[in-house]
Amino acid sequence: MRREITGFSNPLLKEVRSLREKKLRKRAGKFLAEGLRIMTEARDAGFLPEMLFRVRDREVHALEIALESAVLSAGGDIIETTAEIMSKLSGKDNPQAVVGVYRDHGTALAEIDRTSAPIWLIAQAMRDPGNLGTMLRTGDAVGAGGLFLIDDCTDPFSVESVRASMGAIFTQKIVQCRWTEFVEWLRRGDGQLVGTSLQTDTDYQAATYVAPCFIVTGNEAQGLPEEYEAACDLLVKMPMRGKADSLNAAVATAVMAYEVLNQFRRN
Amino acid sequence: MRREITGFSNPLLKEVRSLREKKLRKRAGKFLAEGLRIMTEARDAGFLPEMLFRVRDREVHALEIALESAVLSAGGDIIETTAEIMSKLSGKDNPQAVVGVYRDHGTALAEIDRTSAPIWLIAQAMRDPGNLGTMLRTGDAVGAGGLFLIDDCTDPFSVESVRASMGAIFTQKIVQCRWTEFVEWLRRGDGQLVGTSLQTDTDYQAATYVAPCFIVTGNEAQGLPEEYEAACDLLVKMPMRGKADSLNAAVATAVMAYEVLNQFRRN
Repeated sequence: MRREITGFSNPLLKEVRSLREKKLRKRAGKFLAEGLRIMTEARDAGFLPEMLFRVRDREVHALEIALESAVLSAGGDIIETTAEIMSKLSGKDNPQAVVGVYRDHGTALAEIDRTSAPIWLIAQAMRDPGNLGTMLRTGDAVGAGGLFLIDDCTDPFSVESVRASMGAIFTQKIVQCRWTEFVEWLRRGDGQLVGTSLQTDTDYQAATYVAPCFIVTGNEAQGLPEEYEAACDLLVKMPMRGKADSLNAAVATAVMAYEVLNQFRRN
Repeated sequence: MRREITGFSNPLLKEVRSLREKKLRKRAGKFLAEGLRIMTEARDAGFLPEMLFRVRDREVHALEIALESAVLSAGGDIIETTAEIMSKLSGKDNPQAVVGVYRDHGTALAEIDRTSAPIWLIAQAMRDPGNLGTMLRTGDAVGAGGLFLIDDCTDPFSVESVRASMGAIFTQKIVQCRWTEFVEWLRRGDGQLVGTSLQTDTDYQAATYVAPCFIVTGNEAQGLPEEYEAACDLLVKMPMRGKADSLNAAVATAVMAYEVLNQFRRN
Protein backbone atom coordinates (compact mmCIF):
# COMPACT_ATOMS: atom_id res chain seq x y z
CA MET A 1 0.00 0.00 0.00
CA ARG A 2 1.22 3.50 -0.69
CA ARG A 3 0.76 6.06 2.04
CA GLU A 4 2.21 9.27 3.38
CA ILE A 5 3.84 10.42 6.61
CA THR A 6 4.61 14.10 6.97
CA GLY A 7 4.36 14.60 10.72
CA PHE A 8 7.36 14.07 12.95
CA SER A 9 5.19 12.68 15.72
CA ASN A 10 3.98 9.67 13.76
CA PRO A 11 4.63 6.63 16.00
CA LEU A 12 5.87 4.55 13.05
CA LEU A 13 8.86 6.88 12.71
CA LYS A 14 9.86 6.24 16.29
CA GLU A 15 9.57 2.51 15.71
CA VAL A 16 11.73 2.62 12.59
CA ARG A 17 14.31 4.92 14.18
CA SER A 18 14.58 2.46 17.06
CA LEU A 19 16.01 -0.10 14.61
CA ARG A 20 19.31 1.79 14.91
CA GLU A 21 19.68 0.33 18.39
CA LYS A 22 20.80 -3.26 18.67
CA LYS A 23 18.46 -4.29 21.48
CA LEU A 24 15.36 -2.89 19.81
CA ARG A 25 16.46 -4.28 16.45
CA LYS A 26 16.79 -7.78 17.93
CA ARG A 27 13.42 -7.49 19.61
CA ALA A 28 11.72 -6.40 16.38
CA GLY A 29 13.61 -8.93 14.23
CA LYS A 30 14.04 -6.20 11.64
CA PHE A 31 16.81 -3.99 10.34
CA LEU A 32 17.40 -1.03 8.05
CA ALA A 33 19.12 -0.89 4.69
CA GLU A 34 19.62 2.45 2.98
CA GLY A 35 19.99 3.50 -0.61
CA LEU A 36 18.82 2.33 -3.99
CA ARG A 37 21.96 0.41 -4.83
CA ILE A 38 21.91 -1.82 -1.76
CA MET A 39 18.13 -2.25 -1.89
CA THR A 40 18.33 -3.33 -5.52
CA GLU A 41 21.03 -5.87 -4.62
CA ALA A 42 18.66 -7.08 -1.93
CA ARG A 43 15.79 -7.53 -4.38
CA ASP A 44 18.04 -9.39 -6.81
CA ALA A 45 18.93 -11.71 -3.95
CA GLY A 46 15.26 -12.26 -3.16
CA PHE A 47 14.78 -9.81 -0.29
CA LEU A 48 12.13 -7.10 -0.33
CA PRO A 49 11.51 -4.61 2.48
CA GLU A 50 8.29 -4.74 4.46
CA MET A 51 8.33 -0.97 4.32
CA LEU A 52 10.09 1.33 1.92
CA PHE A 53 10.43 4.97 2.96
CA ARG A 54 11.03 7.39 0.14
CA VAL A 55 11.55 11.14 -0.17
CA ARG A 56 8.72 12.50 -2.31
CA ASP A 57 8.79 15.18 -5.00
CA ARG A 58 12.07 14.46 -6.77
CA GLU A 59 13.34 12.76 -9.89
CA VAL A 60 13.00 9.01 -9.72
CA HIS A 61 15.51 6.49 -11.03
CA ALA A 62 14.16 3.61 -13.16
CA LEU A 63 15.59 1.13 -10.63
CA GLU A 64 13.51 2.73 -7.91
CA ILE A 65 10.31 2.43 -9.94
CA ALA A 66 11.05 -1.28 -10.42
CA LEU A 67 11.86 -1.72 -6.74
CA GLU A 68 8.71 0.04 -5.54
CA SER A 69 6.54 -1.96 -7.86
CA ALA A 70 8.05 -5.19 -6.52
CA VAL A 71 7.45 -4.06 -2.93
CA LEU A 72 3.80 -3.26 -3.64
CA SER A 73 3.25 -6.55 -5.48
CA ALA A 74 4.62 -8.43 -2.49
CA GLY A 75 2.17 -6.65 -0.19
CA GLY A 76 4.70 -4.23 1.32
CA ASP A 77 4.20 -0.57 2.10
CA ILE A 78 5.64 2.44 0.32
CA ILE A 79 5.77 5.41 2.63
CA GLU A 80 6.11 8.82 1.06
CA THR A 81 7.79 11.32 3.30
CA THR A 82 9.81 14.52 3.40
CA ALA A 83 13.58 15.00 3.24
CA GLU A 84 13.47 16.38 6.80
CA ILE A 85 11.81 13.27 8.16
CA MET A 86 14.16 11.03 6.20
CA SER A 87 17.05 12.94 7.71
CA LYS A 88 15.67 12.25 11.17
CA LEU A 89 15.11 8.60 10.27
CA SER A 90 18.65 8.08 9.08
CA GLY A 91 20.41 10.40 11.52
CA LYS A 92 22.27 12.00 8.61
CA ASP A 93 22.21 15.46 7.06
CA ASN A 94 22.24 14.03 3.56
CA PRO A 95 20.06 10.96 3.84
CA GLN A 96 19.53 8.45 1.06
CA ALA A 97 16.31 8.93 -0.93
CA VAL A 98 15.09 5.44 -0.03
CA VAL A 99 15.34 3.39 3.15
CA GLY A 100 13.95 -0.09 3.64
CA VAL A 101 12.84 -2.02 6.71
CA TYR A 102 13.78 -5.69 6.29
CA ARG A 103 13.19 -8.80 8.32
CA ASP A 104 16.54 -10.02 9.64
CA HIS A 105 17.71 -13.37 8.32
CA GLY A 106 20.05 -15.75 10.01
CA THR A 107 20.74 -19.28 8.90
CA ALA A 108 21.03 -22.12 11.39
CA LEU A 109 24.31 -24.04 11.31
CA ALA A 110 22.45 -27.27 10.45
CA GLU A 111 20.99 -25.67 7.35
CA ILE A 112 24.34 -24.73 5.81
CA ASP A 113 25.36 -26.79 2.78
CA ARG A 114 29.14 -26.47 2.96
CA THR A 115 29.56 -27.85 -0.55
CA SER A 116 27.59 -24.94 -2.01
CA ALA A 117 30.66 -22.68 -2.00
CA PRO A 118 34.44 -23.22 -2.05
CA ILE A 119 35.18 -20.51 0.53
CA TRP A 120 33.54 -19.56 3.82
CA LEU A 121 34.55 -16.75 6.15
CA ILE A 122 34.52 -16.76 9.92
CA ALA A 123 34.71 -13.71 12.18
CA GLN A 124 35.63 -14.25 15.80
CA ALA A 125 34.73 -11.50 18.29
CA MET A 126 34.91 -8.90 15.53
CA ARG A 127 33.99 -5.58 17.11
CA ASP A 128 33.99 -3.04 14.34
CA PRO A 129 30.81 -2.91 12.23
CA GLY A 130 32.76 -1.51 9.28
CA ASN A 131 35.12 -4.50 9.39
CA LEU A 132 32.24 -6.97 9.60
CA GLY A 133 30.40 -5.35 6.68
CA THR A 134 33.62 -5.23 4.68
CA MET A 135 34.17 -8.95 5.33
CA LEU A 136 30.69 -9.63 3.95
CA ARG A 137 31.45 -7.54 0.86
CA THR A 138 34.74 -9.40 0.35
CA GLY A 139 32.94 -12.72 0.84
CA ASP A 140 30.56 -11.83 -1.97
CA ALA A 141 33.48 -10.85 -4.23
CA VAL A 142 35.41 -14.10 -3.75
CA GLY A 143 32.31 -16.23 -4.13
CA ALA A 144 32.13 -17.26 -0.48
CA GLY A 145 28.98 -18.91 0.78
CA GLY A 146 28.58 -16.94 3.95
CA LEU A 147 29.97 -15.57 7.17
CA PHE A 148 30.03 -17.40 10.49
CA LEU A 149 29.95 -15.11 13.53
CA ILE A 150 31.65 -16.61 16.56
CA ASP A 151 31.67 -15.28 20.13
CA ASP A 152 30.70 -11.71 20.82
CA CYS A 153 30.74 -10.10 17.37
CA THR A 154 29.22 -6.75 16.55
CA ASP A 155 25.73 -7.05 15.04
CA PRO A 156 25.88 -7.68 11.26
CA PHE A 157 22.49 -6.00 10.90
CA SER A 158 23.61 -2.63 12.27
CA VAL A 159 23.28 0.29 9.89
CA GLU A 160 27.10 0.64 9.66
CA SER A 161 27.67 -3.03 8.90
CA VAL A 162 24.87 -3.18 6.31
CA ARG A 163 26.27 -0.05 4.66
CA ALA A 164 29.83 -1.42 4.54
CA SER A 165 28.54 -4.71 3.14
CA MET A 166 27.22 -2.86 0.08
CA GLY A 167 24.39 -5.37 -0.21
CA ALA A 168 26.36 -8.51 0.68
CA ILE A 169 24.34 -8.76 3.89
CA PHE A 170 21.67 -10.12 1.52
CA THR A 171 23.84 -12.39 -0.63
CA GLN A 172 25.94 -14.05 2.07
CA LYS A 173 24.49 -16.54 4.52
CA ILE A 174 24.83 -15.31 8.09
CA VAL A 175 25.38 -17.91 10.81
CA GLN A 176 25.71 -16.95 14.46
CA CYS A 177 27.00 -19.75 16.67
CA ARG A 178 29.46 -20.72 19.38
CA TRP A 179 32.95 -21.93 18.56
CA THR A 180 32.39 -25.42 19.99
CA GLU A 181 29.18 -25.82 17.99
CA PHE A 182 30.97 -24.63 14.88
CA VAL A 183 33.91 -27.02 15.29
CA GLU A 184 31.58 -29.96 15.98
CA TRP A 185 29.60 -29.16 12.84
CA LEU A 186 32.75 -28.63 10.78
CA ARG A 187 34.27 -31.98 11.78
CA ARG A 188 31.19 -33.89 10.71
CA GLY A 189 32.19 -33.31 7.06
CA ASP A 190 34.89 -32.01 4.77
CA GLY A 191 36.38 -28.63 5.46
CA GLN A 192 39.80 -27.09 5.95
CA LEU A 193 39.99 -24.61 8.81
CA VAL A 194 42.64 -21.95 8.14
CA GLY A 195 43.78 -19.23 10.53
CA THR A 196 46.34 -16.48 10.20
CA SER A 197 48.85 -16.33 13.00
CA LEU A 198 52.14 -14.78 14.00
CA GLN A 199 53.06 -18.09 15.70
CA THR A 200 53.77 -19.97 12.48
CA ASP A 201 56.49 -20.02 9.83
CA THR A 202 54.19 -21.18 7.05
CA ASP A 203 53.91 -18.52 4.38
CA TYR A 204 50.32 -18.12 3.21
CA GLN A 205 51.44 -18.67 -0.38
CA ALA A 206 53.34 -21.87 0.42
CA ALA A 207 50.29 -23.61 1.87
CA THR A 208 47.79 -25.64 -0.15
CA TYR A 209 44.14 -24.85 0.32
CA VAL A 210 41.32 -27.33 -0.10
CA ALA A 211 37.65 -26.56 -0.68
CA PRO A 212 35.53 -26.02 1.26
CA CYS A 213 38.05 -23.73 2.90
CA PHE A 214 37.02 -21.93 6.11
CA ILE A 215 39.08 -18.79 6.76
CA VAL A 216 38.91 -17.57 10.35
CA THR A 217 39.84 -14.04 11.43
CA GLY A 218 40.09 -13.11 15.08
CA ASN A 219 39.27 -10.01 17.10
CA GLU A 220 40.87 -6.76 15.91
CA ALA A 221 43.02 -6.24 19.00
CA GLN A 222 43.60 -9.78 20.34
CA GLY A 223 43.68 -11.94 17.23
CA LEU A 224 42.49 -15.52 17.52
CA PRO A 225 42.60 -17.19 20.97
CA GLU A 226 45.32 -19.86 21.29
CA GLU A 227 42.89 -22.73 21.69
CA TYR A 228 41.11 -21.67 18.50
CA GLU A 229 44.43 -21.60 16.67
CA ALA A 230 45.08 -25.11 17.97
CA ALA A 231 41.83 -26.30 16.37
CA CYS A 232 42.88 -25.05 12.91
CA ASP A 233 44.07 -27.47 10.23
CA LEU A 234 46.50 -24.88 8.98
CA LEU A 235 48.03 -21.71 10.38
CA VAL A 236 49.64 -19.36 7.92
CA LYS A 237 51.18 -15.92 7.96
CA MET A 238 51.36 -13.14 5.45
CA PRO A 239 54.67 -11.37 4.85
CA MET A 240 55.05 -8.21 6.92
CA ARG A 241 57.70 -5.85 5.67
CA GLY A 242 56.96 -2.87 7.86
CA LYS A 243 57.46 -1.59 11.36
CA ALA A 244 54.17 -2.96 12.63
CA ASP A 245 53.29 -6.62 12.26
CA SER A 246 49.61 -6.51 11.55
CA LEU A 247 46.94 -5.70 9.02
CA ASN A 248 43.42 -4.45 9.52
CA ALA A 249 41.25 -7.52 10.22
CA ALA A 250 39.04 -7.08 7.14
CA VAL A 251 42.10 -6.49 4.97
CA ALA A 252 43.84 -9.62 6.30
CA THR A 253 40.72 -11.65 5.56
CA ALA A 254 40.62 -10.32 2.00
CA VAL A 255 44.30 -10.97 1.30
CA MET A 256 43.84 -14.55 2.55
CA ALA A 257 40.57 -15.09 0.68
CA TYR A 258 42.08 -13.91 -2.60
CA GLU A 259 45.04 -16.24 -2.17
CA VAL A 260 42.67 -19.16 -1.65
CA LEU A 261 40.54 -18.10 -4.63
CA ASN A 262 43.67 -17.73 -6.78
CA GLN A 263 44.80 -21.25 -5.93
CA PHE A 264 41.34 -22.60 -6.73
CA ARG A 265 41.33 -20.67 -10.03
CA ARG A 266 44.62 -22.30 -11.07
CA ASN A 267 43.41 -25.85 -10.37
CA MET B 1 58.41 19.84 31.60
CA ARG B 2 55.91 17.96 33.72
CA ARG B 3 52.80 19.84 34.76
CA GLU B 4 49.20 19.30 35.69
CA ILE B 5 45.81 20.33 34.36
CA THR B 6 42.78 19.48 36.41
CA GLY B 7 40.37 22.26 35.50
CA PHE B 8 38.06 21.92 32.51
CA SER B 9 38.40 25.61 31.73
CA ASN B 10 42.13 25.51 31.00
CA PRO B 11 42.60 27.18 27.59
CA LEU B 12 45.13 24.55 26.50
CA LEU B 13 42.39 21.93 26.56
CA LYS B 14 40.29 23.93 24.15
CA GLU B 15 43.27 24.31 21.87
CA VAL B 16 44.02 20.59 21.88
CA ARG B 17 40.38 19.64 21.43
CA SER B 18 40.23 21.93 18.41
CA LEU B 19 42.75 19.62 16.66
CA ARG B 20 39.80 17.30 16.00
CA GLU B 21 38.61 19.80 13.40
CA LYS B 22 40.35 19.82 10.05
CA LYS B 23 40.48 23.59 9.62
CA LEU B 24 41.93 24.26 13.03
CA ARG B 25 44.31 21.31 12.68
CA LYS B 26 45.66 22.73 9.42
CA ARG B 27 46.02 26.17 10.94
CA ALA B 28 47.94 24.80 13.94
CA GLY B 29 50.01 22.39 11.86
CA LYS B 30 49.49 19.80 14.56
CA PHE B 31 47.50 16.64 15.04
CA LEU B 32 46.55 14.11 17.70
CA ALA B 33 47.59 10.50 18.09
CA GLU B 34 46.10 8.39 20.84
CA GLY B 35 47.30 5.39 22.73
CA LEU B 36 50.59 3.93 23.88
CA ARG B 37 50.94 1.51 20.97
CA ILE B 38 50.68 4.12 18.23
CA MET B 39 52.77 6.65 20.18
CA THR B 40 55.51 4.07 20.67
CA GLU B 41 55.47 3.31 16.92
CA ALA B 42 55.82 7.04 16.42
CA ARG B 43 58.83 7.27 18.69
CA ASP B 44 60.48 4.30 16.97
CA ALA B 45 59.98 6.16 13.68
CA GLY B 46 61.58 9.30 15.12
CA PHE B 47 58.49 11.28 16.09
CA LEU B 48 57.89 12.60 19.57
CA PRO B 49 54.87 14.63 20.66
CA GLU B 50 55.26 18.26 21.68
CA MET B 51 52.78 17.52 24.43
CA LEU B 52 51.83 14.22 25.98
CA PHE B 53 48.62 14.14 28.01
CA ARG B 54 48.32 11.30 30.47
CA VAL B 55 45.74 10.14 32.96
CA ARG B 56 47.35 10.27 36.40
CA ASP B 57 47.05 7.85 39.32
CA ARG B 58 47.06 4.49 37.55
CA GLU B 59 49.43 1.65 36.80
CA VAL B 60 52.03 2.62 34.25
CA HIS B 61 53.37 0.38 31.48
CA ALA B 62 57.15 0.24 31.00
CA LEU B 63 56.71 1.51 27.43
CA GLU B 64 55.01 4.61 28.76
CA ILE B 65 57.84 5.35 31.16
CA ALA B 66 60.30 5.12 28.25
CA LEU B 67 58.10 7.29 26.06
CA GLU B 68 57.66 9.98 28.69
CA SER B 69 61.33 10.11 29.40
CA ALA B 70 62.04 10.58 25.68
CA VAL B 71 59.48 13.39 25.48
CA LEU B 72 61.02 15.20 28.45
CA SER B 73 64.56 14.78 27.09
CA ALA B 74 63.45 16.34 23.81
CA GLY B 75 62.04 19.35 25.64
CA GLY B 76 58.39 18.34 25.33
CA ASP B 77 55.68 18.64 27.95
CA ILE B 78 54.02 15.90 29.96
CA ILE B 79 50.62 16.99 31.15
CA GLU B 80 49.07 15.08 33.99
CA THR B 81 45.32 15.16 33.96
CA THR B 82 42.17 13.32 35.06
CA ALA B 83 40.23 10.58 33.28
CA GLU B 84 37.29 12.99 32.96
CA ILE B 85 39.36 15.60 31.19
CA MET B 86 40.95 12.98 28.95
CA SER B 87 37.46 11.80 28.06
CA LYS B 88 36.53 15.33 27.06
CA LEU B 89 39.77 15.68 25.11
CA SER B 90 39.20 12.51 23.11
CA GLY B 91 35.43 12.70 22.84
CA LYS B 92 35.18 9.10 24.03
CA ASP B 93 33.77 7.46 27.14
CA ASN B 94 36.75 5.15 27.41
CA PRO B 95 39.66 7.33 26.37
CA GLN B 96 43.20 6.09 25.93
CA ALA B 97 45.48 6.74 28.90
CA VAL B 98 47.88 8.79 26.77
CA VAL B 99 47.32 11.24 23.94
CA GLY B 100 50.02 13.09 22.05
CA VAL B 101 50.07 16.36 20.15
CA TYR B 102 52.35 16.03 17.12
CA ARG B 103 53.55 18.40 14.44
CA ASP B 104 52.10 17.27 11.09
CA HIS B 105 54.58 16.10 8.50
CA GLY B 106 54.13 16.12 4.80
CA THR B 107 56.84 15.42 2.25
CA ALA B 108 57.19 17.47 -0.91
CA LEU B 109 57.02 15.51 -4.16
CA ALA B 110 60.53 16.65 -5.08
CA GLU B 111 61.93 15.14 -1.88
CA ILE B 112 60.64 11.63 -2.57
CA ASP B 113 63.31 9.09 -3.49
CA ARG B 114 61.27 6.62 -5.53
CA THR B 115 64.01 4.01 -5.43
CA SER B 116 63.82 3.84 -1.65
CA ALA B 117 60.88 1.41 -1.80
CA PRO B 118 59.53 -1.10 -4.36
CA ILE B 119 55.87 -0.16 -3.81
CA TRP B 120 54.10 3.17 -3.43
CA LEU B 121 50.38 3.71 -2.87
CA ILE B 122 48.23 6.46 -4.32
CA ALA B 123 44.78 7.47 -3.07
CA GLN B 124 42.64 9.56 -5.37
CA ALA B 125 39.75 11.51 -3.83
CA MET B 126 39.51 9.00 -0.99
CA ARG B 127 36.78 10.22 1.35
CA ASP B 128 36.66 7.80 4.20
CA PRO B 129 39.25 8.40 6.95
CA GLY B 130 39.11 4.72 7.96
CA ASN B 131 39.99 3.70 4.40
CA LEU B 132 42.86 6.18 4.22
CA GLY B 133 44.29 5.07 7.54
CA THR B 134 43.89 1.42 6.53
CA MET B 135 45.79 2.13 3.29
CA LEU B 136 48.63 3.59 5.34
CA ARG B 137 48.66 0.52 7.58
CA THR B 138 48.70 -1.78 4.54
CA GLY B 139 51.46 0.32 2.99
CA ASP B 140 53.57 -0.23 6.07
CA ALA B 141 52.89 -3.99 5.96
CA VAL B 142 53.93 -4.44 2.31
CA GLY B 143 57.01 -2.27 2.72
CA ALA B 144 55.67 0.65 0.69
CA GLY B 145 57.50 3.95 0.83
CA GLY B 146 54.52 6.17 1.29
CA LEU B 147 51.10 7.35 0.25
CA PHE B 148 50.39 10.00 -2.37
CA LEU B 149 47.12 11.87 -1.84
CA ILE B 150 45.61 13.16 -5.06
CA ASP B 151 42.64 15.50 -5.47
CA ASP B 152 40.28 16.10 -2.60
CA CYS B 153 41.17 13.31 -0.14
CA THR B 154 40.09 13.19 3.46
CA ASP B 155 42.74 14.51 5.84
CA PRO B 156 45.29 11.79 6.74
CA PHE B 157 45.92 13.55 10.07
CA SER B 158 42.34 13.23 11.32
CA VAL B 159 41.89 11.25 14.51
CA GLU B 160 40.03 8.47 12.65
CA SER B 161 42.70 8.13 9.98
CA VAL B 162 45.57 8.17 12.47
CA ARG B 163 43.78 5.54 14.54
CA ALA B 164 43.13 3.27 11.52
CA SER B 165 46.76 3.67 10.43
CA MET B 166 47.89 2.04 13.70
CA GLY B 167 51.04 4.15 13.64
CA ALA B 168 51.74 3.96 9.91
CA ILE B 169 50.99 7.69 9.69
CA PHE B 170 54.49 7.99 11.17
CA THR B 171 56.28 5.35 9.08
CA GLN B 172 54.86 6.13 5.63
CA LYS B 173 55.81 9.29 3.74
CA ILE B 174 52.75 11.43 3.07
CA VAL B 175 52.69 13.45 -0.17
CA GLN B 176 49.78 15.71 -1.06
CA CYS B 177 49.79 16.87 -4.68
CA ARG B 178 47.75 17.33 -7.82
CA TRP B 179 47.44 14.57 -10.43
CA THR B 180 49.24 16.54 -13.16
CA GLU B 181 52.12 17.32 -10.80
CA PHE B 182 52.30 13.69 -9.81
CA VAL B 183 52.32 12.37 -13.39
CA GLU B 184 54.98 14.92 -14.43
CA TRP B 185 57.14 13.88 -11.51
CA LEU B 186 56.55 10.16 -12.18
CA ARG B 187 57.53 10.39 -15.85
CA ARG B 188 60.86 12.00 -15.04
CA GLY B 189 62.10 8.61 -13.82
CA ASP B 190 61.32 4.92 -13.57
CA GLY B 191 57.96 3.89 -12.25
CA GLN B 192 55.06 1.67 -13.30
CA LEU B 193 51.66 3.22 -12.70
CA VAL B 194 49.03 0.52 -12.06
CA GLY B 195 45.31 1.04 -11.69
CA THR B 196 42.46 -1.36 -11.06
CA SER B 197 39.59 -1.06 -13.48
CA LEU B 198 36.44 -2.80 -14.63
CA GLN B 199 37.28 -1.66 -18.19
CA THR B 200 40.07 -4.18 -18.75
CA ASP B 201 40.38 -7.91 -19.34
CA THR B 202 43.84 -8.18 -17.78
CA ASP B 203 43.70 -10.34 -14.69
CA TYR B 204 45.76 -8.84 -11.89
CA GLN B 205 47.69 -12.09 -11.55
CA ALA B 206 48.52 -12.27 -15.26
CA ALA B 207 50.27 -8.90 -15.30
CA THR B 208 53.95 -8.35 -14.56
CA TYR B 209 54.82 -5.67 -12.05
CA VAL B 210 58.02 -3.69 -12.04
CA ALA B 211 59.55 -1.74 -9.14
CA PRO B 212 59.02 1.01 -8.26
CA CYS B 213 55.36 0.11 -8.70
CA PHE B 214 52.78 2.84 -8.03
CA ILE B 215 49.33 1.42 -7.21
CA VAL B 216 46.53 3.93 -7.59
CA THR B 217 43.09 3.52 -6.00
CA GLY B 218 40.21 5.83 -6.88
CA ASN B 219 37.35 7.34 -4.94
CA GLU B 220 35.11 4.88 -3.05
CA ALA B 221 31.99 5.57 -5.12
CA GLN B 222 33.33 6.71 -8.49
CA GLY B 223 36.54 4.77 -8.92
CA LEU B 224 39.34 6.35 -10.92
CA PRO B 225 38.43 9.03 -13.51
CA GLU B 226 38.79 7.85 -17.13
CA GLU B 227 41.63 10.24 -17.95
CA TYR B 228 43.55 8.97 -14.93
CA GLU B 229 43.05 5.40 -16.11
CA ALA B 230 44.38 6.46 -19.50
CA ALA B 231 47.58 7.70 -17.86
CA CYS B 232 48.26 4.31 -16.24
CA ASP B 233 50.90 1.95 -17.66
CA LEU B 234 48.76 -1.00 -16.72
CA LEU B 235 45.11 -1.54 -15.86
CA VAL B 236 44.20 -4.78 -14.17
CA LYS B 237 41.14 -6.34 -12.60
CA MET B 238 40.62 -8.71 -9.75
CA PRO B 239 38.26 -11.66 -10.14
CA MET B 240 34.77 -10.91 -8.88
CA ARG B 241 32.69 -14.00 -8.24
CA GLY B 242 29.74 -12.41 -6.52
CA LYS B 243 26.63 -10.39 -7.21
CA ALA B 244 28.34 -7.04 -6.77
CA ASP B 245 31.43 -6.11 -8.76
CA SER B 246 33.45 -4.17 -6.28
CA LEU B 247 35.58 -4.33 -3.18
CA ASN B 248 36.07 -1.81 -0.43
CA ALA B 249 38.73 0.65 -1.64
CA ALA B 250 41.23 -0.15 1.12
CA VAL B 251 40.68 -3.88 0.59
CA ALA B 252 41.22 -3.59 -3.18
CA THR B 253 44.46 -1.69 -2.53
CA ALA B 254 45.66 -4.41 -0.17
CA VAL B 255 44.83 -7.30 -2.51
CA MET B 256 46.72 -5.51 -5.31
CA ALA B 257 49.66 -4.56 -3.09
CA TYR B 258 50.08 -8.13 -1.85
CA GLU B 259 50.03 -9.46 -5.42
CA VAL B 260 52.79 -7.01 -6.34
CA LEU B 261 54.77 -7.89 -3.21
CA ASN B 262 54.33 -11.61 -3.93
CA GLN B 263 55.71 -11.20 -7.45
CA PHE B 264 58.66 -9.22 -6.12
CA ARG B 265 59.27 -11.91 -3.47
CA ARG B 266 59.48 -14.60 -6.16
CA ASN B 267 62.02 -12.71 -8.30
